[in-house]
Amino acid sequence: MTKRVVVGELPVGGTDPLISSAVRWGDLLFLSGRAPIDTTSMEIVSTDFTEQAQSVIDQILASLAEAGSGPEHVLRVQCYLLDAGDFDAWNALWASTFPAPRPVRTTIVTSFTIPGMLIEIEVTAGIPS
Amino acid sequence: MTKRVVVGELPVGGTDPLISSAVRWGDLLFLSGRAPIDTTSMEIVSTDFTEQAQSVIDQILASLAEAGSGPEHVLRVQCYLLDAGDFDAWNALWASTFPAPRPVRTTIVTSFTIPGMLIEIEVTAGIPS
Amino acid sequence: MTKRVVVGELPVGGTDPLISSAVRWGDLLFLSGRAPIDTTSMEIVSTDFTEQAQSVIDQILASLAEAGSGPEHVLRVQCYLLDAGDFDAWNALWASTFPAPRPVRTTIVTSFTIPGMLIEIEVTAGIPS
Repeated sequence: MTKRVVVGELPVGGTDPLISSAVRWGDLLFLSGRAPIDTTSMEIVSTDFTEQAQSVIDQILASLAEAGSGPEHVLRVQCYLLDAGDFDAWNALWASTFPAPRPVRTTIVTSFTIPGMLIEIEVTAGIPS
Repeated sequence: MTKRVVVGELPVGGTDPLISSAVRWGDLLFLSGRAPIDTTSMEIVSTDFTEQAQSVIDQILASLAEAGSGPEHVLRVQCYLLDAGDFDAWNALWASTFPAPRPVRTTIVTSFTIPGMLIEIEVTAGIPS
Repeated sequence: MTKRVVVGELPVGGTDPLISSAVRWGDLLFLSGRAPIDTTSMEIVSTDFTEQAQSVIDQILASLAEAGSGPEHVLRVQCYLLDAGDFDAWNALWASTFPAPRPVRTTIVTSFTIPGMLIEIEVTAGIPS
């Protein structure tokens, strides 16, 4: 029987672990959309796009490792940008983070719930057996 | 052999069942993005955010139950808000709907195809065997 | 053991195959968000919504066929529109592309990274065994 397994939890706008950082279902791993926010101070980590994006990637790589997955097992990445002008910087970070052949990806331009956020990234991965 | 099973159907801007409310694939359940729209009159249920969000949650819980799943088996929730100012109300409804440890979640701020919509929610769930 | 299988690759803002067009994991198939862009010239295929949308659907159908799937096996479709005024044209194309009972669907209104884009579509499908 497949069982839902919560890998970690995150505060969202408060100190309670309001969402899970990652949930496993069989050999599939679903990560929450990760934001460039320090989960202790609940503040944006930087006003710089690349520093924000690197923080998000670092959180994602940590969650993948915690669940027994990794960047080479990522299936899908959904990226939300505030400013289309950050697309080239995002492509550069993407190419250095995920080894070829890379995951599938969707990048759209939206707004966010927390002022100052420039990027949010959501990942779906496989867990090798 | 895994087979695609449609759990229910929904009209979209008309009376034909243009989309499925939920589709099962093995032990995974995919729900359509649910909107605060009365599927008989095709009108927005309320101008109030919390009433709209509760209507969406009620539809989701009904689809989960119909498919043999439930809020404790939800893996991922993607929430689209028109107004970032509704984030606290969304967090409160979220916390009371999904028991801890909660699903993974992404919340972004976008626009919608139907005027008056303040929220849309898309769910991916597991179906326990 | 389930293994990640890349079905095809796509350039994104350049000539390198920066993302995969589709990735298979077991009997699940994840497609990249597809844009109305000619992958040789990297230019928007048309200024007309229906021509853009048809180009995106054609790319998706080709990727599904390449992976041993097809429109009748599509589980979820996420559609991003620049202009809510294109919703009716999208519904018409949707109805003629996916046979009933149709997949689950979410349609929201966002912006894009490349000027002139009016639509982007992301698909999750099953692969029948």
